[in-house]
Amino acid sequence: MKARVHVSLKAGVLDPQGKAIAHALTSLGFTGIGDVRQGKLIEIALSGEDPVRARAEVEEMCKKLLANPVIENYAIELLP
Amino acid sequence: MKARVHVSLKAGVLDPQGKAIAHALTSLGFTGIGDVRQGKLIEIALSGEDPVRARAEVEEMCKKLLANPVIENYAIELLP
Repeated sequence: MKARVHVSLKAGVLDPQGKAIAHALTSLGFTGIGDVRQGKLIEIALSGEDPVRARAEVEEMCKKLLANPVIENYAIELLP
Repeated sequence: MKARVHVSLKAGVLDPQGKAIAHALTSLGFTGIGDVRQGKLIEIALSGEDPVRARAEVEEMCKKLLANPVIENYAIELLP
């Protein structure tokens, strides 16, 4: 079983990396670029097969290590 | 319109950041952790409303700036 975790900055938190990307895209000639936000995508291979337990475990991983709940949101997606 | 770009390292490309996460998770007491890969998640707000044109434009952005096609894969998802 595989878990995919999307970690992104909460709305309102300044994202300098996103701003840099937006600026670079505009410099390259792309038009109509609005807000750009950069987050993380973490894929974890898990040995268990129980999706309920896997989700609870990944939730725990997010809280303890993968995301900073003060400034980041996370979303967990389980793949078979 | 919003585009979400997932950039991940190609299979076979060494991912030290992923290895560090796997090691940290194991140190925290999580068991059954297999391969961990870390990628990027980029969300771009676009002013256009034509999904075909938007996809072509984001594809171009990926090739020129957002991803390194030699070692990275990218996937584009358009959100209304």
